[in-house]
Amino acid sequence: MTAAIDFYFDFSSPYGYFASTRIDELAQKYGRIVAWHPILLGVVFKTTGSAPLPQVPLKGEYAWRDFERTARFHGIEYKRPTHFPLPTTQAARAVLWLQNHHGDDVATAFAKSVYHALFVEDINIAEPAELVKLAEPLGIDAHAMDAGASGFQIKDQLKAEIEVAMAKGVFGSPFVIIDGEPFWGFDRFDQIEAHLKSKRPMALHAVPGKDSNTSSSDGSTGSSTDSSKEKKPA
Amino acid sequence: MTAAIDFYFDFSSPYGYFASTRIDELAQKYGRIVAWHPILLGVVFKTTGSAPLPQVPLKGEYAWRDFERTARFHGIEYKRPTHFPLPTTQAARAVLWLQNHHGDDVATAFAKSVYHALFVEDINIAEPAELVKLAEPLGIDAHAMDAGASGFQIKDQLKAEIEVAMAKGVFGSPFVIIDGEPFWGFDRFDQIEAHLKSKRPMALHAVPGKDSNTSSSDGSTGSSTDSSKEKKPA
Repeated sequence: MTAAIDFYFDFSSPYGYFASTRIDELAQKYGRIVAWHPILLGVVFKTTGSAPLPQVPLKGEYAWRDFERTARFHGIEYKRPTHFPLPTTQAARAVLWLQNHHGDDVATAFAKSVYHALFVEDINIAEPAELVKLAEPLGIDAHAMDAGASGFQIKDQLKAEIEVAMAKGVFGSPFVIIDGEPFWGFDRFDQIEAHLKSKRPMALHAVPGKDSNTSSSDGSTGSSTDSSKEKKPA
Repeated sequence: MTAAIDFYFDFSSPYGYFASTRIDELAQKYGRIVAWHPILLGVVFKTTGSAPLPQVPLKGEYAWRDFERTARFHGIEYKRPTHFPLPTTQAARAVLWLQNHHGDDVATAFAKSVYHALFVEDINIAEPAELVKLAEPLGIDAHAMDAGASGFQIKDQLKAEIEVAMAKGVFGSPFVIIDGEPFWGFDRFDQIEAHLKSKRPMALHAVPGKDSNTSSSDGSTGSSTDSSKEKKPA
């Protein structure tokens, strides 16, 4: 067993959306699971003094262009949202409520659905009614979710989760922490993969003299008999 | 003939240094030349409200870590500089003076030498005396350079060059513009290469049904008989 990958994201982050379409697949390839952590960049930016990219002079126009080009380069569906930037607090709280009451798999499926709604279907995910519509096909009691996401317990939990994230050094979206190593940005996924490769138990498909460099490894059956060979990232 | 690649950089930018070690090689692969443009991020940041990465809360510690990991990942020599951040005005002006008086090749060789001095040899390139020492092995009249770089003409030129760069949308380092398409960051070099590939005259090594995907093409002999096939980036 190896540790979970911590994946921090704000629903209003286009690069966070791109990362959300790849992180589970990448983790599975190396026998890892992903812990999804919704955060609010608005809270984080109060510490870093940053602002949403599209609102920064000069950077703004470039950012919109880069979102489209990056999506195209990586073959990810993307349509420029008209509701942007927009509050993502209710969506983030809904994900936490789902993690508490339905488990991680349902919460993650909902998170992916919210991202797709904003960045492909151009749905205003700041509207609680839209979140309810996204929850229903997943077999969620959407009205319980709506009520729970508005309750004090979840509000406090989200605040505390963001405090924890910042204490761990998180300052943007997407932000990934693996085995204590932080990676900021979708454009670090190549370095993330190099890290995962270097940390992979060597015994999974051990063929002497041959690197098991295939994408079919799901890692779930491997017993690490050779963990002494784990390397630091090269 | 295809247009030059515009490469904007500040000598105090680690990602700019990384890009400086790759940009000429990448351009040559696709039959392009590079126009090197020293800029001053301090001037640009007055418009964007940014600050040097290592000085931003939370981002600072991450940035130092990312510089080292990114250098290792790409196999680039790098040693954390002790003189940092530091003024790069004199170095930028020296590059402009060299472009004016010795031509682009000498100016680019000097620029690479300055970057290497700061990010590998830990030399304080804010000191004019250190710049003189770097110029001498390149056959430059280093004292003429030192005097010229301190003159009013070059001061005004650098100011104007930065105005032009910002008017074209440049807001960071490294920043690359190719055929009007802007790319910010060393982590966009994969997208830069995809762009160059898509714009390459198809006739260079035309073999029907085969993509001339080799790195040996220098592009200098190709007459573009088939420019109608140039594509937009996919």
